[in-house]
Amino acid sequence: MPNYTAPVNDMMFLFDKLRNNKNYNEIEKYKEINSDLVKDILDEASKINQNIILPLAKSGDENPTVLENGVVRTPPGYKEAYTKYIEDGWTSLSCDPKYGGQGMPKTVSAFFDEMLSSASLSFKLYSELSIGAYNCIFHHATDEIKNKFLPKIVEGKWSGTMCLTEPVCGTDLGLLRTKAVEQTNGIFKLSGQKIFITSGDHDLTENIIHLVIARAADSPTGTKGLSLFLVPKFIVNDDGSIGPRNGISTGSVENKMGIKGSATCVLNFDDAVGYMIGSKNKGLNAMFTMMNLERIVVGIQGLGISEIAYQNSLSYAKERKQGKANNAKPTNGADFIIEHADIRKSLLNMKSIIEGERALCFWLSQQTEVSLNHPDKKVKQEASDFVSLMTPVVKTMFTDMGMEITSEAMQVHGGYGYTNDQGIEQLYRDNRITPIYEGTNSVQAADLVFRKLVNKNGDIINRYLEMIKRDCNTGNEQTKSFVKELNDHIEILSKFTTWIKEKVKNSKDDASAACNDYLKALGFVSIAHAWIKVLEVSFKDYDNNKNFYEDKIQTANFYFKRVLPRMESHFKTATTGSDYIMNFKFN
Amino acid sequence: MPNYTAPVNDMMFLFDKLRNNKNYNEIEKYKEINSDLVKDILDEASKINQNIILPLAKSGDENPTVLENGVVRTPPGYKEAYTKYIEDGWTSLSCDPKYGGQGMPKTVSAFFDEMLSSASLSFKLYSELSIGAYNCIFHHATDEIKNKFLPKIVEGKWSGTMCLTEPVCGTDLGLLRTKAVEQTNGIFKLSGQKIFITSGDHDLTENIIHLVIARAADSPTGTKGLSLFLVPKFIVNDDGSIGPRNGISTGSVENKMGIKGSATCVLNFDDAVGYMIGSKNKGLNAMFTMMNLERIVVGIQGLGISEIAYQNSLSYAKERKQGKANNAKPTNGADFIIEHADIRKSLLNMKSIIEGERALCFWLSQQTEVSLNHPDKKVKQEASDFVSLMTPVVKTMFTDMGMEITSEAMQVHGGYGYTNDQGIEQLYRDNRITPIYEGTNSVQAADLVFRKLVNKNGDIINRYLEMIKRDCNTGNEQTKSFVKELNDHIEILSKFTTWIKEKVKNSKDDASAACNDYLKALGFVSIAHAWIKVLEVSFKDYDNNKNFYEDKIQTANFYFKRVLPRMESHFKTATTGSDYIMNFKFN
Repeated sequence: MPNYTAPVNDMMFLFDKLRNNKNYNEIEKYKEINSDLVKDILDEASKINQNIILPLAKSGDENPTVLENGVVRTPPGYKEAYTKYIEDGWTSLSCDPKYGGQGMPKTVSAFFDEMLSSASLSFKLYSELSIGAYNCIFHHATDEIKNKFLPKIVEGKWSGTMCLTEPVCGTDLGLLRTKAVEQTNGIFKLSGQKIFITSGDHDLTENIIHLVIARAADSPTGTKGLSLFLVPKFIVNDDGSIGPRNGISTGSVENKMGIKGSATCVLNFDDAVGYMIGSKNKGLNAMFTMMNLERIVVGIQGLGISEIAYQNSLSYAKERKQGKANNAKPTNGADFIIEHADIRKSLLNMKSIIEGERALCFWLSQQTEVSLNHPDKKVKQEASDFVSLMTPVVKTMFTDMGMEITSEAMQVHGGYGYTNDQGIEQLYRDNRITPIYEGTNSVQAADLVFRKLVNKNGDIINRYLEMIKRDCNTGNEQTKSFVKELNDHIEILSKFTTWIKEKVKNSKDDASAACNDYLKALGFVSIAHAWIKVLEVSFKDYDNNKNFYEDKIQTANFYFKRVLPRMESHFKTATTGSDYIMNFKFN
Repeated sequence: MPNYTAPVNDMMFLFDKLRNNKNYNEIEKYKEINSDLVKDILDEASKINQNIILPLAKSGDENPTVLENGVVRTPPGYKEAYTKYIEDGWTSLSCDPKYGGQGMPKTVSAFFDEMLSSASLSFKLYSELSIGAYNCIFHHATDEIKNKFLPKIVEGKWSGTMCLTEPVCGTDLGLLRTKAVEQTNGIFKLSGQKIFITSGDHDLTENIIHLVIARAADSPTGTKGLSLFLVPKFIVNDDGSIGPRNGISTGSVENKMGIKGSATCVLNFDDAVGYMIGSKNKGLNAMFTMMNLERIVVGIQGLGISEIAYQNSLSYAKERKQGKANNAKPTNGADFIIEHADIRKSLLNMKSIIEGERALCFWLSQQTEVSLNHPDKKVKQEASDFVSLMTPVVKTMFTDMGMEITSEAMQVHGGYGYTNDQGIEQLYRDNRITPIYEGTNSVQAADLVFRKLVNKNGDIINRYLEMIKRDCNTGNEQTKSFVKELNDHIEILSKFTTWIKEKVKNSKDDASAACNDYLKALGFVSIAHAWIKVLEVSFKDYDNNKNFYEDKIQTANFYFKRVLPRMESHFKTATTGSDYIMNFKFN
């Protein structure tokens, strides 16, 4: 089983030193959330993740969730851990106090999401979708629905799901067939099949609240005829008590390469009672509230798994002896593999990406809070535009880098990484779902290029790049060489941006064939931007914590020398166009 | 279960049109191996791989090889298939007729290795190590040993293993502890533990012939005290019949992420009778005969798994509808995903790498045969130098690209790639061992840079690059634009080579930290070289098979536009040195 120590130090560094965002600091309700409080929360979070949840990873992998006699049974230990988890209030962390939540900002809850992803992604998914459902209901449902369902979801007694995918459609929701027929009393009855439903059924909660995209009987075809419905596993009586079972059955639980503790279900809806959330035929808008926040969290999953993979690689490299280092003294024995240059390079690659991602994520959490809570509408909108731009980037970069990092961890471990003992291969398998679900990374890249760069709110990407340049060009002598590197790469990214904007208008296939590369190029630059902000503080505050800041500066140095330049070949290869790709005959 | 059709067309194209290597064609014994014969062999090979062996992949994954009551049991169906496999003579394909072999050159047997890797890597491993053992015994043992052991190995009735790794040493063999004590009658008794022994024990053959690296009792420490021993599972009587069980027991069979049908064993040697092969204390030299050939075959494994992953991605892309293509006519339905630019790009990425690798491998097979069989010693040595240079490159590139390609296959399949049904996730898991075993890819990269570029035979890399340049600069107008691209990248590779040669002498850590990148840069160029040779033929012979050659030219075009340029960022990042890596304090 891998070891894990929550990186509270690095998290607190971000919270203490990089919370210097004027707009974020203007949000009234977060003014009293100070370092001491956050430190207490993270310390408690470390304990439950390290002690209670981490062991569930192996348990879930060895005893996958199963469907037996119509009942979905989670792995041994899940139920006890979940009970403790909700007793301690972890589901309520970021929820509104009005419904029993603790009202923590995403600057805090994102740290918790990361820890939980490190400890056990499978276990995390049971409550993660509940928060998604919470957000969707919170933003789009009537007060009646909110009062009836939210307190139980916040408490963790009921969980949530997001039901979109059907056999014929994952990416392409216009094709979906689940029907909702309006009854005389204003409720609907839903029929159809949903697949790949995470936490679709299980034995951890009293009730499961499904948020289902379906087509009302009189709605048009395509995506413009889709509405959103709340469909509980058990009907909830007017007094809030659990009523009869609704018309939903579990067809099967998928056998998967990883996240085996998570129940990925086929759900059959058969005249299931549902309540419309939001406006008719506007279901996708409401669902996207849930999906966008969820996509960022999937990015954080990649970060969390990367972190535990790195920690175990580092400790293994310090205890495994093999071969002689180049400059070793002629003694008898072998050296620890951490003395070897290529192992060190690999470890620094992981570390520099992880810490850069965490800093970028912290910046994004602040932007998200500004987008939701700032009093000034214009400020709010600008933050919202940045969040919308960076959502596909964070989802894709962090999960792709998760594949790279878990793979490097396996190489560091050699044969011991491939066998089951050390748990490294499980991290590799578990992480592998993250570039697929919540929209494959190619879907994210297309979303970025075709919808997020320039939209009805203007030229978002241009504003973003201008903002980075302003952030960097502070004239600080100590960060100068880093800033120069970043500026050189922003230059390339700007060329790439001009090229791709033109192609989005005039040659869509060129843009499609380049969108994955464009996302990567932007991602590497965004992480570099986050590193510049870390560096500013590290130089300024250097004397107060020399070891810590020296580590940051050297890690950033690696990122700028070895990681950031990787964006160049993305630019070069992607801008060769697509005629030769589109004309190819695949016989 | 994935489908598979052996790419006989492409293989026959290589055999027919790219066998134009003067030195290879001077090998007397291969002159009669003509196209018709090879076509017959490949057709038969297709049948057994597609019909008998392919189904074993799933069987082995679902019913891993187990150790029960001291007996290692292979998965259902393995024994029947193996019986058919040896009856049809597939183990003997490349072996010397003197011992019952068919005497086929590697230009043919490498195709068979590829097919078998596509069909079931786990099953393949049972006979693969037998061929390794065959080569080792053939080149280093006495006639007595050869006559006693080789016919049965060639026939497939006995199998072989390679026993190097011990708990304290995989990469670093100098540390190994297994002892061999000489007895009065000239034989040895071995004691010690070997781990990660592929096909170390199983129920497919009557006997298992272990080739074991051990230290004779009076030998020095370090790698210079290692000798090689033949240690049979059952003692073989003088008349060739099976005698009593030798002192070898199976401690355990590893649980692994993939290749679950393959028995990866812990073997305990307890006064086991063994016979020294080759000279005392020169065991590693003899073992390297086996390892070097084996490393190329591991590269071919990556190629084979890439091929089946590609085939299934292509067919899935042609049958799965999702989303609208950019220039689709406004009809109701979705388009097949093969209409989408980014899916096409992904498929071409796979295809262009796979076909380039296959062509490179064919070139390398010819070189290998020249290095073993050419009458002119100088010609032989030159070919041997090239084989030795390209061995780590092929092992590493093909297996790394196998990770990329199986991962892309999973993305093309979306959620259906991550669940067990389609078998894509198994390819992803099975391939993942290939960058680890037979020396991790980092070990290969260090081997390349520190031992293969320049050695006692001279400046091998320089000769290799000169040879590529000669091959390319034929003045052919039709390949001109491709050759220009390649020359530009050879230019970069030459700079990288000069840099790294200097670092090998004066700053070894810089070279170590750069060696993985250097290998990649060389690998991308080597595959491009193979493509140039394919292009020469494709243009020249164009009118005789337009569709086939047009496909080749367009696939090559993709490689030169989108794949080859990836080598540049390896050069740029790797040549930043290593001070900042070596000085880093991993606290």
